Amino acid sequence: MNDAIKRYDVVGIGNAIVDILAYAEKTFLEKNKLPIGAMTLVNEKRAAELYEKMGAATECSGGSVANTVTGIARLGGRAAFIGRVSDDQFGSIFRHDVKSENVHFPTAPCKTGKATARCLVFVTQEQNRFNPEGPVTRVERTMATYLGSCTELHADDVDAQLVQQAVVLFIEGYLWDGPDAVEAIYKAVHAAKEGGTKVAFALSDALLVERHKETFLDFIANHVDILFCNEHEIGALLGEPDIRRQLYRAKELCELAVVTRSEKGSYILQGEAIHNVDAERVEEVYDVTGAGDLYASGFLFGYVSGYPLEKCGRLGSLCAAEVVKFLGARPVTPLTTLIDKL
Amino acid sequence: MNDAIKRYDVVGIGNAIVDILAYAEKTFLEKNKLPIGAMTLVNEKRAAELYEKMGAATECSGGSVANTVTGIARLGGRAAFIGRVSDDQFGSIFRHDVKSENVHFPTAPCKTGKATARCLVFVTQEQNRFNPEGPVTRVERTMATYLGSCTELHADDVDAQLVQQAVVLFIEGYLWDGPDAVEAIYKAVHAAKEGGTKVAFALSDALLVERHKETFLDFIANHVDILFCNEHEIGALLGEPDIRRQLYRAKELCELAVVTRSEKGSYILQGEAIHNVDAERVEEVYDVTGAGDLYASGFLFGYVSGYPLEKCGRLGSLCAAEVVKFLGARPVTPLTTLIDKL
Repeated sequence: MNDAIKRYDVVGIGNAIVDILAYAEKTFLEKNKLPIGAMTLVNEKRAAELYEKMGAATECSGGSVANTVTGIARLGGRAAFIGRVSDDQFGSIFRHDVKSENVHFPTAPCKTGKATARCLVFVTQEQNRFNPEGPVTRVERTMATYLGSCTELHADDVDAQLVQQAVVLFIEGYLWDGPDAVEAIYKAVHAAKEGGTKVAFALSDALLVERHKETFLDFIANHVDILFCNEHEIGALLGEPDIRRQLYRAKELCELAVVTRSEKGSYILQGEAIHNVDAERVEEVYDVTGAGDLYASGFLFGYVSGYPLEKCGRLGSLCAAEVVKFLGARPVTPLTTLIDKL
Repeated sequence: MNDAIKRYDVVGIGNAIVDILAYAEKTFLEKNKLPIGAMTLVNEKRAAELYEKMGAATECSGGSVANTVTGIARLGGRAAFIGRVSDDQFGSIFRHDVKSENVHFPTAPCKTGKATARCLVFVTQEQNRFNPEGPVTRVERTMATYLGSCTELHADDVDAQLVQQAVVLFIEGYLWDGPDAVEAIYKAVHAAKEGGTKVAFALSDALLVERHKETFLDFIANHVDILFCNEHEIGALLGEPDIRRQLYRAKELCELAVVTRSEKGSYILQGEAIHNVDAERVEEVYDVTGAGDLYASGFLFGYVSGYPLEKCGRLGSLCAAEVVKFLGARPVTPLTTLIDKL
């Protein structure tokens, strides 16, 4: 794991997305048939219609794995990202934000074709589950994603050498929604196997898991070393609502599995060992967008640094707690102080 | 003032700008010759160079008067805005955010020419002046503005009838940096005079005032009914650093003048009367971008609602306090609750 000759700690491959965040009422989500707390794919027309109805918004770079790798870079890790933007203003924002975090980002933008992907994030108000006695704060996010130029990610965009220069290759489940990306993924995992690069995989979203259940089970069994998921996603994958039985079966899926459970903390499963890690208590949760992504940042940074697994999970919890304090999926604070906290 | 036949409470005319906000170190500002706390105009090339060096950012719609009119709409007021964006993604963001606040925005975007204006906002860390014993929070903002399509605002974009349908026409000093906008301003103020619309004017920025001192003095004397400024701006206009003497002379500039002083509150001057209004205490100031703009929202909403002047200032203070709690120049919370607070 502690591979001194590797140039990067983590190379991520994922959808390159600009998030458009606004507050919304739950009734708005119901009226517009957006499943609360989940990600729904929309075409360009529907994205425009929803945006038209959306409140005044804030734009931030997003994308699940992109959030994770920028988090790793903020922790002081060496990170790279593979993903497709277009040659438009949103593409410039995304490129700028990734590069300004010192993440190596070699993928060329598309000069023609679809616009840069955007994700309409509707943040709804709910009682803060971390602080049930406290003020009502915003904690749930519901997403409508237009994939745009992300669907133009091809195997050619994957530099096998870059993958092999990393200790870990991190892949998001969301990629399976762009059909051509699958070829890129397989090129990446084969390169990883040849180069001794560990493969980490995030299940991304419960509804997505429903769409690709069999493929994911097969992919995990054959290619994944480290699995990231939350309790809903693992439930969807295994068709198993009971957490105890989920954990029992998740252990058999791959050598290392991490199941996050929001304010209830996380489980880390390796062989026969189960580590239960507490969540970091947050006084006022402002927006949960990116919490899972940043948990992965902390965990993977710990993993490549050779921390014991429980400490990896602890850093994951601290990073997740940091991002929920602000609107947006990437922390605005330096994360290196969190390492000192451990 | 309580003009039932007017269709709008306030019509604003100003630069239509998308803000790009990021945290920065003071040394960065010094190295890049950006005067701390002020607005510097930059050309497209320099804007690109500075953006390249800027940290990961968040994009929000901005523009001083645009912030004010969206604040008025959030308070429940009827607002309209005149300003020029381009037909690009940033232009779409700006248009969306203004319209989604129910602000009437009839100005057509430029189909050719320069891109939509952007303002690089560098938020620097400083001791919170409201809470000197508390944690260090971000309170200062330094701006580099590329005016882009704002410079394409012409007299043709000003609908005289729209101006006359408003109780107040609100103009920002920043407009004087786009040479062709002056014609548009004069068309607007002449329409206002004919239609019995009051003219409010914000000095915008101390360095800007230095650039246009004589013009501003003349404009205020001949066209302005309500003047908004902070202590630095009025100091620059009058060449007078002493606050007592500033107030004495400001009273003579126009029938109603408001001087804001951050955590020290504000002065409202009318005839021989001086009202001293306290600032609202804020536990943790996060970003002062938009504080002055939102003060004007509260004040003008109170003014068109027929509130006594002190109550207008109090609502201004409450609105300003609301926007400094978040990153960005427009509040994300409903402001109507602030009216109940009065």
